[in-house]
Amino acid sequence: MSDRDVPSLSDIQAFFEREFPHNGTVIEQLSHHASVVRHPVGTQHLRPGQTVMGPVMMALADTAAYCCLLSRGIEQVQAVTSSLHISFLGRPVAHRDLLAEARPLKVGRRLAVVDVKIHSEGSTILVAHATVTYSMPGRSRDSAS
Amino acid sequence: MSDRDVPSLSDIQAFFEREFPHNGTVIEQLSHHASVVRHPVGTQHLRPGQTVMGPVMMALADTAAYCCLLSRGIEQVQAVTSSLHISFLGRPVAHRDLLAEARPLKVGRRLAVVDVKIHSEGSTILVAHATVTYSMPGRSRDSAS
Amino acid sequence: MSDRDVPSLSDIQAFFEREFPHNGTVIEQLSHHASVVRHPVGTQHLRPGQTVMGPVMMALADTAAYCCLLSRGIEQVQAVTSSLHISFLGRPVAHRDLLAEARPLKVGRRLAVVDVKIHSEGSTILVAHATVTYSMPGRSRDSAS
Amino acid sequence: MSDRDVPSLSDIQAFFEREFPHNGTVIEQLSHHASVVRHPVGTQHLRPGQTVMGPVMMALADTAAYCCLLSRGIEQVQAVTSSLHISFLGRPVAHRDLLAEARPLKVGRRLAVVDVKIHSEGSTILVAHATVTYSMPGRSRDSAS
Repeated sequence: MSDRDVPSLSDIQAFFEREFPHNGTVIEQLSHHASVVRHPVGTQHLRPGQTVMGPVMMALADTAAYCCLLSRGIEQVQAVTSSLHISFLGRPVAHRDLLAEARPLKVGRRLAVVDVKIHSEGSTILVAHATVTYSMPGRSRDSAS
Repeated sequence: MSDRDVPSLSDIQAFFEREFPHNGTVIEQLSHHASVVRHPVGTQHLRPGQTVMGPVMMALADTAAYCCLLSRGIEQVQAVTSSLHISFLGRPVAHRDLLAEARPLKVGRRLAVVDVKIHSEGSTILVAHATVTYSMPGRSRDSAS
Repeated sequence: MSDRDVPSLSDIQAFFEREFPHNGTVIEQLSHHASVVRHPVGTQHLRPGQTVMGPVMMALADTAAYCCLLSRGIEQVQAVTSSLHISFLGRPVAHRDLLAEARPLKVGRRLAVVDVKIHSEGSTILVAHATVTYSMPGRSRDSAS
Repeated sequence: MSDRDVPSLSDIQAFFEREFPHNGTVIEQLSHHASVVRHPVGTQHLRPGQTVMGPVMMALADTAAYCCLLSRGIEQVQAVTSSLHISFLGRPVAHRDLLAEARPLKVGRRLAVVDVKIHSEGSTILVAHATVTYSMPGRSRDSAS
């Protein structure tokens, strides 16, 4: 993989704010081996029982995993999520931000698989674990399906 | 399962509007065997490439599956998503609503598993397929973990 | 996809017996749209509680899904399982054969996704549901990862 | 959870040999926090392309995860796999044993979720990653579904 055009954390943060203005996450750390992404939690993210809604965690897992790929080159913007598996392990604390830590298990030419662990800030107890698979952009135009 | 308190489609729609005001889905059909839920698609749901963002489909799958459980009795409001697996099969059409059709594969005393198929309105091509698992509310207070 | 070399049910059965002699399954029906595969159940497939072991069902799901791809052309023999998700829904009957019905949800140029439902012979109750994803053989030599 | 009847590694190895005589795995390490299980690889485990068949890795993931639960008390023998998700990341080396390392992500009263990483002996490259969910045995008789 070419190292030209390797984007910085602030490049990727700006990309998300421009392309996904409703995303709302903040990238905390970024390297080829791991990313940490924060999701601020407000009242609109809660469900009955004073806990965070599942879809907030699914979107956060997808964002954190995607950051791992983007850190390898801006052409990865064309990577497409092909599947996501998430296990909900416990109730997040209602008024604490969520932090997702993503680590690539494999980055191949056709598929990438990223492991994501989510916990509430200030706690080490996992609230969710996800495995996210991406179909990688082809070098030629073979990424359509 | 008791049939007292079996809620109607409009009861469940009102529940979603009250408890999940940002959810934005519309229940189209509801029975013990299937639910159909619509997600109106606007500009805020699109990602680069003029297609619908993955998290919109994940949230829709979770909502449609949850409706299947709620239709069996309002006490199912305490069912908690324990895992969700989604395969993204193709790009949704950018300015068409999404429709999710959910069918329970199993409704047990401890776990329920629901199959969800998503397509763009006016098309029969699947854009996503999900399997959603719920931990069912205990009869006594044993649903905490 | 080329239609040359479309194999018959007995071609595929012979392929399994030659290449996977311990597989033990019998193809019952085969078309582009569905396959039905039988797994004879003997004492060696049972676990404590007089029910069939989970790995038997996982192997059967993989075989039935693979048959759907093979029916499209013998070059699909190079398709590789990239992920498998299975939900166990109930206990199979101990001394009944298992039947798996596989239907492709998508057959793309890079990925195929197949839905598989498993039940005991003589029963309509599902015992397992699987989603199996394959990385498809490249036209040129790009299938290595 | 009671600590009476916490079985040793050799107790669990003997249990597998008695109850699952075709399992063929060897427990290498065992604690509340992790288990390592070896699967000897012979000719009967290979598929065309001189690599190990997927179902061998699925069965190994299930065994390694189950060992983590059994290490907590022999009553866990009644835990039942409710779902398994596996990503195949690369081709195992043909004539090397496989090693699976399992770590519980959560052990709750109703569900346990275990993370499993598989690699060929002598290599640090992952060949598969699985997430295995178990429905835990009830304290009273409520584990039937």
